[in-house]
Amino acid sequence: MAATSETDLLAAARAGDRRAIARLLTAAETLKPASAAAMELVYREAGRAQVIGVTGPPGAGKSSLVNALTKEFRGLGHTVGIIAIDPSSPFSGGAILGDRVRMGDLGGDSGVFIRSLATQGAMGGLARPALDAVDVLDACGFGIVIVETVGVGQDEVDIAGAAHTVIVASPPGLGDGIQAMKAGLLEIADIHVVTKGDRPDAATTAADLKGAREAGLGTGDRGSWKVPVLVTSAATGLGLPALAGAALDHARHLRESGEDAGRRRRTAALRLEAAAADLVTREVRRILAAREDLVDALAERRVDPRKAAGDLVGSAFGSRV
Amino acid sequence: MAATSETDLLAAARAGDRRAIARLLTAAETLKPASAAAMELVYREAGRAQVIGVTGPPGAGKSSLVNALTKEFRGLGHTVGIIAIDPSSPFSGGAILGDRVRMGDLGGDSGVFIRSLATQGAMGGLARPALDAVDVLDACGFGIVIVETVGVGQDEVDIAGAAHTVIVASPPGLGDGIQAMKAGLLEIADIHVVTKGDRPDAATTAADLKGAREAGLGTGDRGSWKVPVLVTSAATGLGLPALAGAALDHARHLRESGEDAGRRRRTAALRLEAAAADLVTREVRRILAAREDLVDALAERRVDPRKAAGDLVGSAFGSRV
Repeated sequence: MAATSETDLLAAARAGDRRAIARLLTAAETLKPASAAAMELVYREAGRAQVIGVTGPPGAGKSSLVNALTKEFRGLGHTVGIIAIDPSSPFSGGAILGDRVRMGDLGGDSGVFIRSLATQGAMGGLARPALDAVDVLDACGFGIVIVETVGVGQDEVDIAGAAHTVIVASPPGLGDGIQAMKAGLLEIADIHVVTKGDRPDAATTAADLKGAREAGLGTGDRGSWKVPVLVTSAATGLGLPALAGAALDHARHLRESGEDAGRRRRTAALRLEAAAADLVTREVRRILAAREDLVDALAERRVDPRKAAGDLVGSAFGSRV
Repeated sequence: MAATSETDLLAAARAGDRRAIARLLTAAETLKPASAAAMELVYREAGRAQVIGVTGPPGAGKSSLVNALTKEFRGLGHTVGIIAIDPSSPFSGGAILGDRVRMGDLGGDSGVFIRSLATQGAMGGLARPALDAVDVLDACGFGIVIVETVGVGQDEVDIAGAAHTVIVASPPGLGDGIQAMKAGLLEIADIHVVTKGDRPDAATTAADLKGAREAGLGTGDRGSWKVPVLVTSAATGLGLPALAGAALDHARHLRESGEDAGRRRRTAALRLEAAAADLVTREVRRILAAREDLVDALAERRVDPRKAAGDLVGSAFGSRV
């Protein structure tokens, strides 16, 4: 990316040039020095979209839900960007099977842009690339940006929790409900969705979630918003208009109550921490590639990793350590 | 912890003083400046145990498997330390339901020590506290240290992957098998276990995993070790002696083939990166607590998080940025 063309690239992306959008997303993902100016511009221009986090345990049917919800939003005239965080292999870097195939029927719609983020080797965390990618779609003018993460894993939960509106998807069945609760998902939900609502046990799971809500579990941070529990089915269309409506209601609630300011500040602090971790791990990794002696000393336990890290950060970023 | 008593504390822990072990684990978890010397001593003394990572999708029965496998190792005369990584709430910090209750019957055995790591707010990643806690139990003299993580989430997969021997637990049923593959678990497995082997569909899942192995999926990094696929049942005891034997065989294989050196180096590099990320995020968080103006500027998108992070790291660690 030429240093002078960031504004042009973003302008092209905003005008609907899908290759330009894809290039900005790649810039967000890899964050090469050459794209720093573009990402700075993106950060400044973003902040207009409603960011919706969709998360839940594996097998909850999140991708089908995102697909169906996107169609609802499209029917209401909203454009929708989607960032899906694929857990990828620490060795091969490849997601062997992708959910994206199920989203194929949105492919022809210019009001929708879908990107699966590869997260291979993202030491320092997934939060930095994920939230930057959300900003790209936001700055490109998509009115709603959905970020889909699996709801297990601290980083993945943090990313969904950084959205304006957090939808937690739970499949029917008590076992899965417990897993969701264990992962701390109960506490970050603005909207609970029981997926696969055509299954007979969906009502029980919805009742369990309502019971947990009435018991005051996980509602400490929701302000004056009463977390709805909805039942949907991507197969039959059950509950999807209600879900789209609840998500839009929540955005309105945040604005009118002033609660969005607190959320934006919390997300901003998270991003700064993530950016610092990203910056430093990149630099440490770069240095380590040329320091086999140091890796050997660590592996043989002659050198303490904390001391070595302090020395490396100090020599990379200054001399005060 | 008094600055002069680290050696005494570790000596007490090695002699079996469970309060001393617990204190060292807390030191590993919180990493206060006062415990830096203790952790340095721990790092130097660790490296003797066989570290076994047990991971798999939610609902795979990992805790029951770890419980049963621990009893097998005890029967063979090995002492066993266990670190369980509980996904905890980003807001409340509490794991609502704990698997640990199921491990109650190991509680009276002085050759076993179990610790659930709280990972709340572990920005900079879970790897640093988790791997330090493993080292504590290693340095305390446990011959085998098992680290159990949920196999979804980049950080959680990295932690399990940093072990000498990685056991991937999959419940019967194709859906879950696919989820395990998606999470990149196939590639990090040294031993595959199909849990709940009393269920009729366990054989199918085992055949699927063998098929994937024969097809060469996810075996690129396993050297000359042929990844076994075992079927176990914590309920009936099926396959547990074979699993314990396979884990011990794998440790022998690593030593005799010399492949353990590469693993130790890879883990050492990961730890250095994790220590650096931990160091920097702690410092950034500390600074941010007194810089509401900066959080506001970020939230209002007047300041770019990358620039702010570079400035903060530079001013905290030196002046070269």
